[in-house]
Amino acid sequence: MKIAVLGTGGGGRAHAAKLLQLGHEVYVGTRDVETTLARTEPDMMGNPPYSQFLADHPGIQLRTFADAAQAADLVINGIDGASALTALTAIADHLAGKTLIDYAVPYLYNPQVEHPWPTPFGVMPKLVPCDDDSLAEQIQRALPEVKVVKSFVTQEQDTVVDPQAIGGGDHTIFVAGDDDQAKKTVTELLQSYGWTDILDLGGLVAARGMEMYAHMHAAIGMALGMGTPFGVKIVRR
Amino acid sequence: MKIAVLGTGGGGRAHAAKLLQLGHEVYVGTRDVETTLARTEPDMMGNPPYSQFLADHPGIQLRTFADAAQAADLVINGIDGASALTALTAIADHLAGKTLIDYAVPYLYNPQVEHPWPTPFGVMPKLVPCDDDSLAEQIQRALPEVKVVKSFVTQEQDTVVDPQAIGGGDHTIFVAGDDDQAKKTVTELLQSYGWTDILDLGGLVAARGMEMYAHMHAAIGMALGMGTPFGVKIVRR
Repeated sequence: MKIAVLGTGGGGRAHAAKLLQLGHEVYVGTRDVETTLARTEPDMMGNPPYSQFLADHPGIQLRTFADAAQAADLVINGIDGASALTALTAIADHLAGKTLIDYAVPYLYNPQVEHPWPTPFGVMPKLVPCDDDSLAEQIQRALPEVKVVKSFVTQEQDTVVDPQAIGGGDHTIFVAGDDDQAKKTVTELLQSYGWTDILDLGGLVAARGMEMYAHMHAAIGMALGMGTPFGVKIVRR
Repeated sequence: MKIAVLGTGGGGRAHAAKLLQLGHEVYVGTRDVETTLARTEPDMMGNPPYSQFLADHPGIQLRTFADAAQAADLVINGIDGASALTALTAIADHLAGKTLIDYAVPYLYNPQVEHPWPTPFGVMPKLVPCDDDSLAEQIQRALPEVKVVKSFVTQEQDTVVDPQAIGGGDHTIFVAGDDDQAKKTVTELLQSYGWTDILDLGGLVAARGMEMYAHMHAAIGMALGMGTPFGVKIVRR
């Protein structure tokens, strides 16, 4: 399949590398291709320069957000939660009719205005929106011709593409969205990643809980020790 | 141990019955003892009249909130999230120095002002506070001499006291609080309930994520079918 991954951070890299390995045609979208390729230092999360990632993964094609989305049948949003709505709205024409998988957490983060980090240990940045709305629903309202599916967000980026690395793969991942066919597409993608327990939480309104779970996820991660991989298994009777 | 359970709803009943069974001295607190005993109809959640519950559980002592708290060494807050802060603050003197286990979810619900239910399917009532504060932290700030521990809240009331009923008991429950000795007390109580995987999420700030998980919990419950018991297992590598 032709799949676009928007964003060059750690999450986007994990998906791009896995999709390439699975034999897909992978288009990675970035704001400005030349700027991305010109970087020679690790990014703010310590990831090596993207040019190195591309050299290690021949076949992945780096394009602008618009060109990557246009080339693809399925689009994964790996743009950070504070920037995603604006960036996706700007390329609405290239997303229309397609399934968009969103896994962003809408942490309040605007480097041009105010930096909420560092915060006291255990205090996470605010979520905007939160509780009575979600980023996924905002994206869906802004892009009514796009089929938005929320997924991936409850799992670390390295293990969302490698669930077998934890507990033999016996843990749960979630999908939510208003289009059943789009959720089926995402479910099949998750199965190709190795997921066996995929729980459909219903309409996109369930994205509220999935995004708000970020604070619980962070607390669990800190309790286990930063960087310790873990999964969440929904245990039925 | 002398344990007070504040509140006569389904959650409070589950704890009171289990604690009685475990051999504790159980004091249940209610706003007005006579009013509670005078009811002859099921409550809004369909629970039978409390007088019937008491008849079925000889030994449980029904008192006012103040008298139940005063009689106990350990207090469980089973008052609903919208009323808990006011009710607990009113009996501050009887709670001072004690461990208080809080499992309330601060759903916005004020029958005197506005009723947020019914909402569209999947839309949960707003959480107030949310994101940058929690009910548990509000209680702790209002009652600085009380050792507040958040727990139970991620699990249904029937299975929090009977974890073995799900997956052979192999799922996870959480504690958070600023007093290590109080968390140890709660951990031992959970062990006596049958819990084997008890994860300490750290300071009471983690109550934010535990309370906000309510939306995810509700979405999972609706996905599995209302009333289907489930647990959450944190799967380590």
